[in-house]
Amino acid sequence: MTIIDQTRLPLEEKFLSSKNYRDVCEWIKSLRIRGAPAIGIAAAYAAALAAFEFGSKGKIDPRLDGALGEIHQTRPTAVNIRNILARLRKLDLSGKVVGDVFLGEAHKILAEEVDSCRKIGRFGLELVPDEAVILTHCHTGGLATGGYGTALGIIRAAHEAGKRVMVIADETRPLLQGARLTAYELQKLGIDFKLIVDGASGIAMKKFKVDLVVVGADRIAANGDTANKIGTYNLSVLCKEHKIPFYIAAPSSSFDLAAKSGEDIPIEERNPDEVTHFRVAPSAPWRKFIMTLMGANCRSAPENISVYAPAFDVTPADNIAAFITERGIIRKPYLASIAKAVG
Amino acid sequence: MTIIDQTRLPLEEKFLSSKNYRDVCEWIKSLRIRGAPAIGIAAAYAAALAAFEFGSKGKIDPRLDGALGEIHQTRPTAVNIRNILARLRKLDLSGKVVGDVFLGEAHKILAEEVDSCRKIGRFGLELVPDEAVILTHCHTGGLATGGYGTALGIIRAAHEAGKRVMVIADETRPLLQGARLTAYELQKLGIDFKLIVDGASGIAMKKFKVDLVVVGADRIAANGDTANKIGTYNLSVLCKEHKIPFYIAAPSSSFDLAAKSGEDIPIEERNPDEVTHFRVAPSAPWRKFIMTLMGANCRSAPENISVYAPAFDVTPADNIAAFITERGIIRKPYLASIAKAVG
Repeated sequence: MTIIDQTRLPLEEKFLSSKNYRDVCEWIKSLRIRGAPAIGIAAAYAAALAAFEFGSKGKIDPRLDGALGEIHQTRPTAVNIRNILARLRKLDLSGKVVGDVFLGEAHKILAEEVDSCRKIGRFGLELVPDEAVILTHCHTGGLATGGYGTALGIIRAAHEAGKRVMVIADETRPLLQGARLTAYELQKLGIDFKLIVDGASGIAMKKFKVDLVVVGADRIAANGDTANKIGTYNLSVLCKEHKIPFYIAAPSSSFDLAAKSGEDIPIEERNPDEVTHFRVAPSAPWRKFIMTLMGANCRSAPENISVYAPAFDVTPADNIAAFITERGIIRKPYLASIAKAVG
Repeated sequence: MTIIDQTRLPLEEKFLSSKNYRDVCEWIKSLRIRGAPAIGIAAAYAAALAAFEFGSKGKIDPRLDGALGEIHQTRPTAVNIRNILARLRKLDLSGKVVGDVFLGEAHKILAEEVDSCRKIGRFGLELVPDEAVILTHCHTGGLATGGYGTALGIIRAAHEAGKRVMVIADETRPLLQGARLTAYELQKLGIDFKLIVDGASGIAMKKFKVDLVVVGADRIAANGDTANKIGTYNLSVLCKEHKIPFYIAAPSSSFDLAAKSGEDIPIEERNPDEVTHFRVAPSAPWRKFIMTLMGANCRSAPENISVYAPAFDVTPADNIAAFITERGIIRKPYLASIAKAVG
């Protein structure tokens, strides 16, 4: 499989290819591929690669089972990987080459996710007024999904429908997915936007009269509590203060009905270096070597300090005005409406 | 005068010296010296340097007047520069060498500001419970003030009083004063702390059971509305949600009774490069040159994009539990209590 290395964007458009599922696991862990729907799709292809490698036939043999476990472990918060592996495990494999079955299912999952994004975009349209100012966080565009986007898919659909939207894009520290990826995609799509630091979201809501905030999700519990990129919860509280509707756009593969509430969602903590260092992503190893020699390690904090580096936070269901899924818009009370829509 | 170049910290401790007031203006504009009280003090010394340069005697002659205007224009939001220049303009200069008078006053201002910080620390003590978890934003320590700190002065006083405090330090994008300077000072002082990205403040309030938030101020209006580093307003809203007291620590030189409310405070917008690029501050020009050659310009966003880069935001007085000044703690209703304390 081939991906674009998201850690190099927007400085370079570098593609990575491999037929080894372990490489795909590394890509997911290192965020070369990221975004809850995208890593779910990648997990399906990784499972197919593993099945071909082990020549699995008729069933999930112990080695393939181990590989599926490795894929499962790559990232803990987004539920898409788990949901998709569970789906693969339920397939009828008797008498079949497992790689073929998994690959067929991976193609199907990819097609479904692209279709979901387009449907999310269409359902979301009704929530976007003309000349809307929309604030978003992190990156939820084509690269993070099957190819159209969830929250960014709604923005894109509104733009394509001629609604003249203006986007305020949080840069999204620490890994700057907003600055690197959302800005890159919005620029490519020709959609008007302004980049801000995450701390400027409150003043931006006032200054630009933000009409709505829409973000993606890494896992949505049965009661509507939603884990998403760190900083999302802060935005939801600011929306409450400013009486701005706060929406989550996500496919049904991001729901986890086994999690009763946000307390059941594991929150991944990442390497403190992601906070204390700024990655320049030099394109060649020799460049990286020279930069290291020069001491230009882009460190922004003293050495040997304590860092709290959660990758996600949980937004309580109460702060969420609605979920926009490929099955329609889900509104309060969530326990019942979520069970009905995705149960 | 000599300063430590704050833009190089914590990677290098580089000192800058000059007897030219224009250099001091450049230091203030480029944030080599920053922090509302510190730039007020620097402005006083710059005024003395200008007065010596022009050989001013007995009065503020036109050239000195122009220089004071230049100093005034360096940064628009912090009121300390304006307040201190106004103080210099009121001095009795008849028959005196203006440089001597200004220099004497600058020394006096420096001593007063150091004294103010120590008093702020002492008054603030009563608001800090034992084993307090204190969240702070930006940098308000010795480097930003006369030498002890305002918000960080309270933290320091509590630590010195044996209160076993733990600090959560916002990194404070875009210029990372929290990561670079607050972390540097807390580490030097041996105070326990954790660095977080600004977007993690909400989850950190929950996880670490933050007892209080205390920050500095760049300008406080007559009604208590307070301009401070971008991201401060977001914190105040999160405090409201979490029922955590939100305090401003600032000397009386940061109040501007001529500003009726936050609407009268000009908000400086900075160069978009501060958001889209990460400064590595290589220590020698040849390093910078090689890095530029290598394309390692630490750009984190696509080129030619629109950025909204306010340096400050305004926190409404309503969100502020109290002001801690060298004249005591100021509580609501602010219009009356501020006028009484600093009028």
